[in-house]
Amino acid sequence: MSIVKVGIIGIGNMGSSHVQLLDRGQIEGAKLTAICSRNEGRIQWVKNNTQGDVQVYQDKETFFNESGIDAVIIATPHYSHPELAKEAFRKGIHVLIEKPAGVYTKNVLEMNDAAQASGRVFGIMYNQRANPLYQKLRDLIHSGELGELKRTNWIVTDIYRSQSYYDSSKWRATWKGEGGGVILNQALHHLDIWQWATGLMPKRVNAVSSFGKYHDIEVEDEVTAYVEYENKATGVFITSTGEAPGTNRFEVVGDLGKIVVENEELTFYRLKQSEREFNRLYKDGFGKPEYQKIDIPVKSENANHANIIQNWIDSIMTGSPLLAPGGEGVKALEISNAIYLSSWLNQTVELPVDPDYYYEKLQEKISTSTFEKKHVTNNTLDVKGTH
Amino acid sequence: MSIVKVGIIGIGNMGSSHVQLLDRGQIEGAKLTAICSRNEGRIQWVKNNTQGDVQVYQDKETFFNESGIDAVIIATPHYSHPELAKEAFRKGIHVLIEKPAGVYTKNVLEMNDAAQASGRVFGIMYNQRANPLYQKLRDLIHSGELGELKRTNWIVTDIYRSQSYYDSSKWRATWKGEGGGVILNQALHHLDIWQWATGLMPKRVNAVSSFGKYHDIEVEDEVTAYVEYENKATGVFITSTGEAPGTNRFEVVGDLGKIVVENEELTFYRLKQSEREFNRLYKDGFGKPEYQKIDIPVKSENANHANIIQNWIDSIMTGSPLLAPGGEGVKALEISNAIYLSSWLNQTVELPVDPDYYYEKLQEKISTSTFEKKHVTNNTLDVKGTH
Repeated sequence: MSIVKVGIIGIGNMGSSHVQLLDRGQIEGAKLTAICSRNEGRIQWVKNNTQGDVQVYQDKETFFNESGIDAVIIATPHYSHPELAKEAFRKGIHVLIEKPAGVYTKNVLEMNDAAQASGRVFGIMYNQRANPLYQKLRDLIHSGELGELKRTNWIVTDIYRSQSYYDSSKWRATWKGEGGGVILNQALHHLDIWQWATGLMPKRVNAVSSFGKYHDIEVEDEVTAYVEYENKATGVFITSTGEAPGTNRFEVVGDLGKIVVENEELTFYRLKQSEREFNRLYKDGFGKPEYQKIDIPVKSENANHANIIQNWIDSIMTGSPLLAPGGEGVKALEISNAIYLSSWLNQTVELPVDPDYYYEKLQEKISTSTFEKKHVTNNTLDVKGTH
Repeated sequence: MSIVKVGIIGIGNMGSSHVQLLDRGQIEGAKLTAICSRNEGRIQWVKNNTQGDVQVYQDKETFFNESGIDAVIIATPHYSHPELAKEAFRKGIHVLIEKPAGVYTKNVLEMNDAAQASGRVFGIMYNQRANPLYQKLRDLIHSGELGELKRTNWIVTDIYRSQSYYDSSKWRATWKGEGGGVILNQALHHLDIWQWATGLMPKRVNAVSSFGKYHDIEVEDEVTAYVEYENKATGVFITSTGEAPGTNRFEVVGDLGKIVVENEELTFYRLKQSEREFNRLYKDGFGKPEYQKIDIPVKSENANHANIIQNWIDSIMTGSPLLAPGGEGVKALEISNAIYLSSWLNQTVELPVDPDYYYEKLQEKISTSTFEKKHVTNNTLDVKGTH
């Protein structure tokens, strides 16, 4: 294959951004040859804003069967990701899905099976994995420089959204249309990095979510989650779309010190002696282990979607490894599902949550919903600078 | 009264420090005239380390009845504070108690009644209230500059203690002797500032405590507490004596921005427009309210115990207001008691906790304890630089 023929399905905020990236030749080895959308306005937008020869489909069957694409980027609303991906895999098409992988793990696990059976390259748009800050954090932890982990803490409130964002489309921030709020959408990247960088998946989650606290929506816009890990480490994850200016501070504490990622900087507070050892050997009461404060310079280039698309295209062309394999999309979703379940039940839940049980509970939310969106503007928003 | 004759009861870590302050004339208008201790070694230490004419008592009855003191600093182990304070008030003696006010609210509330009935000046050693950083934080919040509060977050892990600290005396870190661990002792100052600076007492607490996680002790050395306030704001308080180097970062978010106190600095992120108003009026999806980052210089002098003792003496002499009225000691203790109860019951508890119920639960902890301290060194530790 000399060039990968890429199709994009779903021309909303993210899909439109990907159309432009590909059409402007910013992805080496790839060419946008087809799009699929049911929205006349978005189809017209594609026609007006692309230079290349892009075929337009309104029907997904025809898109998958007749467009001749090698690979597809799925940027439709969340619920449809697994079904569309499975359809693509059946046709032998490589897939890159927007996050989240889906809304509940039940069909995401089926999608993962289908991907494996197909042998196609399956990626997910966890573009924050391309962020050098989180890559360096992961390196330090995985290489053992921080020692055994004791505690994690991430405050993610720099993802402000105003009511107008939620009003931009009908499906947004509803149980039926989106299946969740901040913890399924804006903060899902962070849930992924939380487990990817530390190498720890929570075993237990106790979470409180506030539904429609700062916005006229039925899903949550503020979450506090407490977790426990297998090795007895603890963690807290806090997120909100109702605070300004927000905080983005990720602290990871280990036996050999502490790393803080904040304001695009990584600081390593490194102990000269392991805390556990100091605790055993020190005899004078109030002393503390000595440490060095080390500022670790990290290339601050923005991790953008193009990195992930390029990495996926390269993998299709050369078999190089994916930074964000699609099959790992389920991990952040498992944490997210557990946070919802804990919030709904008002109790601690164990991970992984039973996929069937979660699916049932979500259906209850949908079927008992009485929420009606008052002002839908149907805008497509410019996602530049967002995740 | 030209000079206040002060007695000190309890010559452990803190009491010894207060003996030196007073004996060296560092408190204006006060004179150390008597001490009370049952420990021969500590009595000898007082004799060797004081210049003034300090009477020594081994028996508290005689100390209160015959020493002729006007005022007493109570620096005995926590459990005894309320009883000793009540005894002092009965004799018409002014009282400054070390924190915590007591171990459970039942007898602390009785102490508060006794204080009020006596008309004496009753202070508590919440010396962090004298810290200019927290005073400035409180001013900004109480003057309305931060707007209605939305969220608080305090990570207090810079109070490291090694095993040797816990081994320094038999009563430390036992249910029977101390009645609690980090949340009753080291982090109690922070619990007080948490409510004092924000003006908000939690209504509900959901906490997880780890007992003897990093040390050979039976009480907790790590706590994560989630709280909800009357106005629907939420908060998280995290503390541990098992991390190095620790964090001390207090974030308070309001409708008009955010204040962060960390590294002895106060930073105010001030919005030009209230977030609630921006949310209503803004129409373009991804925008955020504009803000200014304001570094507020604060005199960084260390808030020390002398400030509180001087303030108490001044109040005795002139009737000037107390920075830390003894009656307010119950507030941090109510939060602390609620954190224990929530941790023991593994459920959310409402504040204030029923004093009788908490007392019962604590007695259960004491009576079912099987913990034995292995290595007691009986050291008196130098508290310089601690809280």
